[in-house]
Order: sequence, then structure tokens, then C-alpha cells
Amino acid sequence: MASNTVPLGVYIWKRLASLGIEHVFGVPGDFNLNLLDQIYDVPELTWLGTCNELNGAYAADGYARIKGHPAALLTTYGVGELSAMNGVAGAYAEHAGMIHLVGMTSRHVQKNRVLIHHTMKPGMDHAIYIGMSEPVRATHAYLMEDAKMAEEIDRVIIEGVKSRLPVFIYIPMDVVQVQLDAKRLETKLDTRIFNESVAEDEVVKDVLQLIRKAEKPAILADVLTIRHGGRDLARELVDLTQFQAFSTPLSKGVIDETHPSYGGNYNGTVSFPGVAEAIHTSDLVLNIGPLLSDSNTGAFTRDIKETNLVLLAHDFCQVGSKKYENIHFLPVLARIVSELKKSPKSFNIPKSTPLKLNPPVLNALKSGKIEQSYVWQRLGKFLKPDDIVLAESGTAQFGIPDATFPSNVQYITQIFWSSIGYTVGGCLGALVAAKETKHPGRVVLLVGEGSLQMTAQEIGSYIRFGFTPIIFVINNNGYSIERAINGPTQRYNEVSMLWDHQKMLEFFGAREETGIKSRSWKCETVESLEEVLEGGELGRGDVISVCEIVMEQYDYPWRLTKQVEITKGRVAALAAAAAGS
Amino acid sequence: MASNTVPLGVYIWKRLASLGIEHVFGVPGDFNLNLLDQIYDVPELTWLGTCNELNGAYAADGYARIKGHPAALLTTYGVGELSAMNGVAGAYAEHAGMIHLVGMTSRHVQKNRVLIHHTMKPGMDHAIYIGMSEPVRATHAYLMEDAKMAEEIDRVIIEGVKSRLPVFIYIPMDVVQVQLDAKRLETKLDTRIFNESVAEDEVVKDVLQLIRKAEKPAILADVLTIRHGGRDLARELVDLTQFQAFSTPLSKGVIDETHPSYGGNYNGTVSFPGVAEAIHTSDLVLNIGPLLSDSNTGAFTRDIKETNLVLLAHDFCQVGSKKYENIHFLPVLARIVSELKKSPKSFNIPKSTPLKLNPPVLNALKSGKIEQSYVWQRLGKFLKPDDIVLAESGTAQFGIPDATFPSNVQYITQIFWSSIGYTVGGCLGALVAAKETKHPGRVVLLVGEGSLQMTAQEIGSYIRFGFTPIIFVINNNGYSIERAINGPTQRYNEVSMLWDHQKMLEFFGAREETGIKSRSWKCETVESLEEVLEGGELGRGDVISVCEIVMEQYDYPWRLTKQVEITKGRVAALAAAAAGS
Repeated sequence: MASNTVPLGVYIWKRLASLGIEHVFGVPGDFNLNLLDQIYDVPELTWLGTCNELNGAYAADGYARIKGHPAALLTTYGVGELSAMNGVAGAYAEHAGMIHLVGMTSRHVQKNRVLIHHTMKPGMDHAIYIGMSEPVRATHAYLMEDAKMAEEIDRVIIEGVKSRLPVFIYIPMDVVQVQLDAKRLETKLDTRIFNESVAEDEVVKDVLQLIRKAEKPAILADVLTIRHGGRDLARELVDLTQFQAFSTPLSKGVIDETHPSYGGNYNGTVSFPGVAEAIHTSDLVLNIGPLLSDSNTGAFTRDIKETNLVLLAHDFCQVGSKKYENIHFLPVLARIVSELKKSPKSFNIPKSTPLKLNPPVLNALKSGKIEQSYVWQRLGKFLKPDDIVLAESGTAQFGIPDATFPSNVQYITQIFWSSIGYTVGGCLGALVAAKETKHPGRVVLLVGEGSLQMTAQEIGSYIRFGFTPIIFVINNNGYSIERAINGPTQRYNEVSMLWDHQKMLEFFGAREETGIKSRSWKCETVESLEEVLEGGELGRGDVISVCEIVMEQYDYPWRLTKQVEITKGRVAALAAAAAGS
Repeated sequence: MASNTVPLGVYIWKRLASLGIEHVFGVPGDFNLNLLDQIYDVPELTWLGTCNELNGAYAADGYARIKGHPAALLTTYGVGELSAMNGVAGAYAEHAGMIHLVGMTSRHVQKNRVLIHHTMKPGMDHAIYIGMSEPVRATHAYLMEDAKMAEEIDRVIIEGVKSRLPVFIYIPMDVVQVQLDAKRLETKLDTRIFNESVAEDEVVKDVLQLIRKAEKPAILADVLTIRHGGRDLARELVDLTQFQAFSTPLSKGVIDETHPSYGGNYNGTVSFPGVAEAIHTSDLVLNIGPLLSDSNTGAFTRDIKETNLVLLAHDFCQVGSKKYENIHFLPVLARIVSELKKSPKSFNIPKSTPLKLNPPVLNALKSGKIEQSYVWQRLGKFLKPDDIVLAESGTAQFGIPDATFPSNVQYITQIFWSSIGYTVGGCLGALVAAKETKHPGRVVLLVGEGSLQMTAQEIGSYIRFGFTPIIFVINNNGYSIERAINGPTQRYNEVSMLWDHQKMLEFFGAREETGIKSRSWKCETVESLEEVLEGGELGRGDVISVCEIVMEQYDYPWRLTKQVEITKGRVAALAAAAAGS
């Protein structure tokens, strides 16, 4: 009976829809078109074509970060999957789940190793690209045997959800029509995280014990807390314990910054006064979802004694020196929260220390040239509760931690993978996710002009699909982050300064004859920027808007300058030691 | 003595300059900046930063195709090298030589597997990306041991030149300062191609014998003739033998199309009347530099009997059924030409057959909507001798073979790798190469609006660096090549139609206040297009120009329709056979 089976393409699309996915990103190509045909049989899903595959991967990544489940990306084999590679690698590094479907040549054509377009030489195995992606995925399915396909698809999707890492499904053209057992779809995929119970029991018991004893405790919720679905639990933990709580450069916003217990953004010694001291002098640091990369630890100036540290990671937990491999923090955190709820009184709470650390005002400029030390805190005041904020690699990313976020701001940045141009694609995904979830806040993109040039065409997609983000373009004459690192006056740090960002929205589609409205400003002084920020029009976010902010090319956020200093000091010390040895 | 050594970076740059390279493409990043610092010590070289790495790879590819030697591409490890991957793979597939330098973390940082930006997880080997690129290169050097560095650099560059395939040099930051023996630079790299002599002798003898005997001979010069430096020899061979001579879709222009012996563009049965017949009935086809992919053989309808065929390839030669592995056509062709020159009389030349095949006039439209069957031959008439023409994957690529090129046109297309967006980056490289060589012709880009959206930012680089290409934008409402293949009315084949191509040059920098002049037209009718093409202003090519040509979305070049028909027929036959078995 036909009704007992479902074509493989439909099967995949339905499985993806069951995760909560409503939009699929990517670029069509000869070898995925028949798979795309079947997306129209699954009304829960909508295809959203991006201008190119790298931007598609970035969009999928941004989407996943807001939706809290993996995104779906579709490319064509060879040209498409390779173009997306850097974006997929970023999703791997920063645990933005992604299910990457690759449409391949048919099995017959593969068997004969046909010299078809997108291969590279006679006799080439068409699966050669599968090997290339191995390091940027958790697992993959290569659908070659009819009997195993359904099982393989399910396995890979489950692994993608659980790991929050990219997974790949390689789909030869001819298998799209293979009929799979429709009954399987009646059983929802089980994507819950379970730990080995004895070790989990021990971790929970130990942590609860430490919470009871702690005199000067702190919660440090890092980015993998969010990526692995623990944000709400972390916030509950803060509410229940009233411990002083901190975020990191990558996780900014994980703890509501208006919360009385919010202590600030911790980035080793590259933090506001009092922040590092508070963490480093704590007798208990509950560090959830850590990602201990250079720019997320103040160039490795994080300094927490092991005896005071509890690490609740996605792949291990560690209490002092006791390490439990393969224990995922999520069930642990859920149980800790649950225990605290059950008997709050047994936990010796609240503590009496004043928790709120007020950040300094760096530069209360009123007029003249716009400076880095002024602009980020000022932009922070422009933000509203529930905004989604994306900060591009570069000065935006090192500047915005100076700002205090209003309630419930969601923040996207990529300071570990650090691929410039990411946020322009990521913003498209965030816009789509915000629309799907009827998110009340605005989407605000903070991007430098050099990064924008990497991926600018996706601004056209914002307009095409009717989105109205607020785009701040930091125009400071080149790659300022690179100038801070090396060769401030070298020509290689220049980019084209000929683009007219005031004409950008018009060029990409917001014009009178299209009926698409937009607003655009260029601010070269504090006065003009204040006028725009205060004026109310930009803030409404009802039409797509650009606010271009012109700044000096050798003006860097202090966090960038300080991190570069620390790193250079370390390299110099190493060189001196080598010379002396 | 300081003068006896040279820092490694300078050594590499000087070696690249010795190949004839004058510009290096790519994007700066933390881990290649100190290598870039040293480029300023080598005045023969100029850094040319592209908007992103994929475009940089495309530019390098286009540059190599015009210069006839490998290009240089510089990226930063992880983000940069992965972004470039698809562009490098295209250069591999189509033998556009490319020396890809990747700036990596220092050896000390690698040894400690530091969780620095652009890595993906704790404890990760920073060299993991080296493995990912393995299939898209001929060889690589990973500069870890001081004593072997110079030798390794030389080996890899030589292999890059000889193979015309991408090669990689991975350069940890700290090794840029390693001092190498400057004396090595006095010896030029030996990049000449030599064959094993007995086999080469035999091939040459056999081919000369066949040339003497042939009654109805033909020369079929394919794209690897050009890529491996054999174009001038192939042209000499045509002059000396006066054999009827053909190009392929990839090699169009290899034989001067004004030459009395030029027979046409051979693409199996997807050729103009008389072309396939001429080849298929030849008793000797000298097929130089073959690349026998689907779209370069009329969907595998090439039909040349082995007994009549001589294959002179870059990695083997074959005379009838006798195959000589690892014999490169270049020395073979040089000797054949030399023998013919020495004693032309002994070769029974000239033959008396009329050689020139005149292509049909497909559609001599005079007014109304612009049609595919009219436009390509018309654009052919717009071309001038010495023009460099780039045809993007899609309708441009399947349309332009209808045109007859004026004398000495150089043609770039990527119908084997077929990565859309390629030509927009490739055109930048071609422009740079044309400037270096003081090329007399114009650079003409033929690109569809969907492909343009992939890589559009590089139009900004044309303007930034003062180039004045003539850009034809085929605006036909989406991916027409995909519509021809599958789902003509499906929404996935749509792209944004909101871009205003008439504002593109203005947006990217050609405006009154910048002093950069441009011209832009939009043609929706034959009359308006004729006016622009005849008007003379566009043709001057003295300022950057856009001529947007609006065409109907379901109108495809006949070559595309026919190739799709053949392919679909084959798939249907296969399915029928499978159903019957």
C-alpha cells in the first residue's frame, strides 16, 4: 500500500520538521533539486535560498543559536558542500547544531565514477568530499543501501541534536525516491540526554554539598550552557541560590544582566574592575558549559584554583580534582535545580554579600568624534529588552562587552571560531528564527565595514524576505582588529573605502518602486549619533535600517588592546626564554 | 653574515616572483600578517586583498588562466583556508595552477595544542585542516623543520608549476623569520617538463607517421592544451598542417576562430551542424589536452573511434590502442611541431578539402524581447580581437559557444567544476593579469544575476583597483540553468529580483564624489540592446560598465536544452532497463 511508505526525501524533511525546524537554508544545485521538490510535500517546512553556501551555513548557525535546536542546511556535492565548509566548521567549534544535507550524484553514476561536473579528475570517487568534511562533523550517513537508510537518517539526526555538532547526510539523487516505512515517523526521535547514573549521582551529590558549604560562591555560565539547552536552568540556579553570577565574552546575556545577582562579564584579567577579583577569590565557582579559548578567557588569564572549581561541561564534569568523563551537564544541572527547589532551606541561602557589580562609565562623550570607549556602552543603552544582538568579529565583538544589556537580550558572537563576515549570514538565520518564534524583540547587527564586505549580499536576503533588522556599520577604514594585532599602518589591513553604505539598502532592494521602506544614517560625530539613537525612528525597527558609525582606524576597544598586549607579552617572554636557553 | 641569509617569508615571495607572479591574492588574518609584512621587501610583488577567501581563490584561478603560470593565494589557517576550499578545488579540476600559502599558529602553540581561535576543540591538532585539503592539491609542504624548509618550498613550487594543480605551503607564524640560505635564490627553479625518452620518441614517431598518412585529419585542442602551456604550439601545428581544427566548450578560442582551418566548437552531438560529422568521420583526430567531462563532450556524445584517435594528454599519450602512461604532451607537441617545421614537404600538405565551417545564424532578431537564440551570436559580434571573455556557469556558458570570436580572444569558463559565482572572482584575476601583461584587449564578463549574487562584492574590488571591465548581467529571474534541469516553476530556482543592477557600480564606488566614472544600461528589448552595443560608449571599455540584459526565465540556450534532453534520456533508459531486469 502506498500509504504505508513515504519517499526518502519526505522522510528526511518530516524528521527535520519534528525537531522544530521550520526553514531550511542553502543553495539549490543539480544534485539536490529532486530532494527539494519533496520539501513542498511537507508544509511544516519552507525553503530559504541564500545567496551562497557559506552564507547559508552562517544563516543556519545563527538560526540554531536562537531556536535552540539544530538547523538544516542543504547544498550540492563538491562546489556547494566545500563552499559551506568554513561555516560548518564554525558551527562545530561553537556547537551550533547543524544537519547538513548534501545532494550527490546517483549511485549508478558514482559506481561508474563518471567524469561529471563537480568531480575533479577521471576515475575519481565521488565520495571523496565526504572524507574532507570528517573533522567538522560528529557523524554522517552516506545513503547507499536502501535497507539501512531510515535507520541511518534517524541515527544521524539524533546524534546531531544530542551533540549540538554538525552532522551530514549524503543523499545520492536516485535515493530520494526510495520508499521508506512511513510507520517509523509515528515514533518521535528520542533526543534526550542520559548519563551513566552512578557517576551522575556522585556529581550531583558533590555539587550540592559544595553549594551548602560555600562562603563566597559564584556561578560562571559559559556559552555551551546556552548551546546545550541549559540557559533556563542556569538562570533558575541563580534565582534559587542567589549566587553572584557571571557570563563570558561568548555567553554574554546568559544571565539576565538586570538580575540583582549579575556580577558581570568574566574574561580573565580583561574584565571590568572587580569581576576577575570576585571570581578568583570565590571558594566555589560553578562553571557551566565552559569553552576555554583564548579570547573567551582574556588570553588565558583565567585563574581559578582547581580546588574551588566545579566544571559542568557537555562531555565531562569535574569537581575539584575528581573528573567524570562523558557526564553531560544538562541532566546534572536539572537535578541540582530540582533539589534546590525541593528544599531551599537546607541550602543556607541567601548569602548576605552585595552581589551587583556596577560597571564603570568609560567615556561619557557628548560631542565630537565618535570613540570606541564611548560607543559600545552607548549602544548598550539603545538596546531594549528581548533584543537579539549580533556582534561581528573585530571591534564590535571586543567592544560590546562594555555594554550592559537590558533584560533578556540574546547575544550572538563567534569569538572562538572568529570567522569575519559570519554575523551578516548569522543575522539572516536569527531573523528567521525570531519570526518563527514570534520573538518580541528586535534583531540588531553590529558589523564592521571590512567584515560586511565578506558576506554583504545577504543584506539582500533580509530585504527579499521582508525582515527589518537594525544594522550598525562600524566604518573605520579597514581591519582594525588586525591593525591592533600587527601592522597598524600596513596596506594589507585596508579594505575598499568606496562602498556607499547609505546606498546599500537601496541597491539591494529597498526603493520606492519596490515599495520596501528603509532608513539610513551616517554618523560622524557624537551629536549626530545621539540624534539618531534618541530620535526614535531607528529604534522602532519597523523597517530595515542602517546606522553607519564612522570611527578612527587606530582607535581600538580597550579589551582588544589589552588582550593583544597580554599575548604579545607572552610571545616575547617565550622568545626571551628560548634565546636564553 | 646577514647578507648570506634571507628570512623565510622573503624567500617564498622571491621564489613566487621568479615564476612571473606580480600580484598575490587573498585575505589577511592574524596568522599570516607577519608573512605579509615581508612582501614589502620584495618589490616585484604587490598584495591584492579580496573581499573574501573564496573570491580570492577564484581571482587567483582567473589570474593563472591568463598568465599561464600558477597564481599565489594567501589565507589564514582554519577560517581562511576552508573558505577558499571550493575555489581551490575548481583550480584543481580545471588545472589552473595555484600556490596556496596558509599562515598557521606558531610551532610552540601547535605543540601545546592551544585552544586558540580558529581551532575547533580542546586538544585539537592545529594541522587537522591540512588533511582536509589533501584531495584538492598535488602536494604540500608543512614547514616545521628549519633545515628542510628551503628544499620543501622549492619542491612544492616546482610541482605546482609542472602539474598546474594547486599546491599548499603551510607556514607557522614563527618560521617566517627563519633564516634561509640566500644563495639558493641564485639558482632558478627548474620547472621544465621532461618525459622518459624512449616512450616519447615512439609517440612522436607514430604521430608523425599518422600525420603523413591521414586523408581526413583533424586537430581537436581541448582546454588542458591551454592550461599546460601548449596553446601556441597547437596553433603552430594548425598553421603547419593546415588540418581542420576544433575547440571544445572549455577550450573555445584555443584555435583562432578567424583562422581558415578553424572548424568550430566540438561538443559531441551538441555542436553546430557539420562539426560532429567532421570529427566523427576523420581518419585522424589529434586530440590535445583532453578533459572529457559531461558538459565538455555534449553529455558524453563524443564519438571518435580509438583507431582514428591520438590522445596527447598531460599525464599520458595514446596512439590508437597504444597507451603511454606519464608522457606529457608538451615536449611531444614541441617535437612534432619542430619536425614539421624542419621538413614540411615530407608531410603531404596542404590537403585540398574546404576547411572553414560557417556557423548558422540562429536568430536574426531585429526587435522585441531579447532571446537566448539571438543574444549570444550578437554579443560575439560585439567582441573585438584580443578581448578576454569570461562566461559564467549557466546560460552564459551554454550560450556563448554560439558566437564566433574575433582573432585572439582568450576565453575563461568553468564548465567542468561548474561553481556558480566563479567568474566574478575570476574576472578580478583576469583584470590583474591583463594589466600586468599590458594586454591590448578588454575584459568582458558575462554573468547571470543569480551567479552574480554569489560573489558580487568583488565588483567593488574592480572599482577599488581601478579596473574597467565590461559586465553583461543576464537578468532572467533566477537560476535558469537549474530551471532547465529540474523544476522550471519551482520556487527554489528563484533568487532576489530586488537588486538594482543599475545602482550597483554607484554603490560599490563609482560616483561623482569618488571621481570614478562608470556607465550602466538596462536593456529589455533588442532595439535598446542594439543601441548600446552599436553606440560605441560601452565598447570603449575605458570606464567600468554594466549592460544588464533582461531575458525570459524559461528561455534557455539550445545547447543547454539539448544536453539536458540527452542526459534525461539516458537516465530514463537506465531506469527502464532496471525496471525490466
